[in-house]
Amino acid sequence: MPESIKVFAPATVANVSCGYDVLGFAVAHPGDEVIVHKKAAKGITIRKITGDEGRLSLDPAKNTVSFSILKFLEHYRLDTGFEITLHKKMPLGSGLGSSAASSVAGLFAVNELLGSPFSKMELLPFAMEGERLACGTAHADNVAPALFGGFVLIRSYDPLDVIKINTPSKLFCTIIHPQIEVETKDARSILPRQVLLKDAIVQWGNVAGLVAGLMSDNYELIGRSMRDVIVEPRRAMLIPGFEKAKQAALDAGALGGGISGSGPSVFTLSKDEHTAKEAGKAMLKVFKQLNIAGEIYVSGINKAGPQVVG
Amino acid sequence: MPESIKVFAPATVANVSCGYDVLGFAVAHPGDEVIVHKKAAKGITIRKITGDEGRLSLDPAKNTVSFSILKFLEHYRLDTGFEITLHKKMPLGSGLGSSAASSVAGLFAVNELLGSPFSKMELLPFAMEGERLACGTAHADNVAPALFGGFVLIRSYDPLDVIKINTPSKLFCTIIHPQIEVETKDARSILPRQVLLKDAIVQWGNVAGLVAGLMSDNYELIGRSMRDVIVEPRRAMLIPGFEKAKQAALDAGALGGGISGSGPSVFTLSKDEHTAKEAGKAMLKVFKQLNIAGEIYVSGINKAGPQVVG
Repeated sequence: MPESIKVFAPATVANVSCGYDVLGFAVAHPGDEVIVHKKAAKGITIRKITGDEGRLSLDPAKNTVSFSILKFLEHYRLDTGFEITLHKKMPLGSGLGSSAASSVAGLFAVNELLGSPFSKMELLPFAMEGERLACGTAHADNVAPALFGGFVLIRSYDPLDVIKINTPSKLFCTIIHPQIEVETKDARSILPRQVLLKDAIVQWGNVAGLVAGLMSDNYELIGRSMRDVIVEPRRAMLIPGFEKAKQAALDAGALGGGISGSGPSVFTLSKDEHTAKEAGKAMLKVFKQLNIAGEIYVSGINKAGPQVVG
Repeated sequence: MPESIKVFAPATVANVSCGYDVLGFAVAHPGDEVIVHKKAAKGITIRKITGDEGRLSLDPAKNTVSFSILKFLEHYRLDTGFEITLHKKMPLGSGLGSSAASSVAGLFAVNELLGSPFSKMELLPFAMEGERLACGTAHADNVAPALFGGFVLIRSYDPLDVIKINTPSKLFCTIIHPQIEVETKDARSILPRQVLLKDAIVQWGNVAGLVAGLMSDNYELIGRSMRDVIVEPRRAMLIPGFEKAKQAALDAGALGGGISGSGPSVFTLSKDEHTAKEAGKAMLKVFKQLNIAGEIYVSGINKAGPQVVG
């Protein structure tokens, strides 16, 4: 077994359009890299973090990259020690599952260094603990796609029921991260406690269509089904230019899109790389007109989850 | 082209558990039979109806079997005349799509007699007109599965978007029609205008799981996903013994179940015929204890829609 390992784990889009709280997917890039060394002494230490502009804690109990590992080692009563270097290669607080990528990268690396005794399904609850640290809730809609790759449905939390959904081969994702801040708690508080039954029915019809479209490689059905009548109309107001940017991407040929996680990033899906790039340009233009800078990521869907890269 | 034809169209289960208003399927039996003759004179006449205990009208404008044909002939300005004999071979007002079966059987027969110029998708809106006559709304969740067979998702009405969903090969359906009356308008009025967002999320997670289960022949996932937290808990009170009967069927090995349409029929799905029969016996026993007689139907899923039988 190696003494050290370098692992990449991907950014993820949660709250995929109509699939609010239940559907997420992983992108090929960006993502985080961790380098984990076994060490002689017990316990976890974080040696270094780059790319976070000093925003993340080096205290292992306060950083998702290490907290999920601590929970994991504690649960299985393992006393191996590890030293972690974390390279954040994606923006924090952007709605792209930054904490999930770190948490999954760390856990996966440690499991590899131990000889892979645990399955991804067994690692998942500990990655979710990382989310509990990062945002107060042990939600799975970023960590599950980051861990399993592709599209993942979180059907239920009690009991936890996580289902991989087929990813059509030609699907490309465009993400724009506009340089504005959306607080997750604002994104939560803007949602009503109750919704109209008739809207809920439209939503679950679309969720059913989206899953059917993904599972049958039916790009047009995916596009038609990516309509969120409940969450997006309310959260859109937190992202200036959202509606216009999304429409511009659709006009450029994107199948559909929405807010990534709780924003501010916006994602669209397209059925080829060229269209995905055009969608990105179109969205960038809209935000520029509002004097909002934005970073664009165009990539395929990550189908493998975390990968050993060194 | 033949001068007369005999067509069978199947009963259907709409509001499939969590898929309220969007998901339906067709069963192999029971169903309706129509015999349609071309006639020299223009217009439609209903020659005879059997099996309806005199409850259905012989006036072509007041019976779904002929009303959908009238709308169809009117739309395409066709002046061929037809004479219809309708054999109702399923109970009326039972929540099994009786009007849809008649409407689809009639339309399909006429299209066949005309040399099949129209596709099923083109026939669908006229079958929906039959539903408008029968219950005031041109809903598609019975006529679409009756016409296409198998499981059908009605993703949207405007524009109409109807998607065939894969049917796992071993799926069997048990239906019990208890001898009680549930008025569709009561079943409607018992539903709230608003629902909790958290319940709606559970529901669309389950709808996604159900579609994923159907499309991947994953019987356990189908079973786990058949949980309706919104409509069933409210409508259950209209059907004495519902909860107990459903639980008895699950205990007998059924994957899941629910209210068929707006009731009073109750359906369950099982992964083999033997289990489906046992589920039926178990439900019958529960209703018997309440002094409610019930008729049991066990069959596979109808995958073809209407069939020419003579």
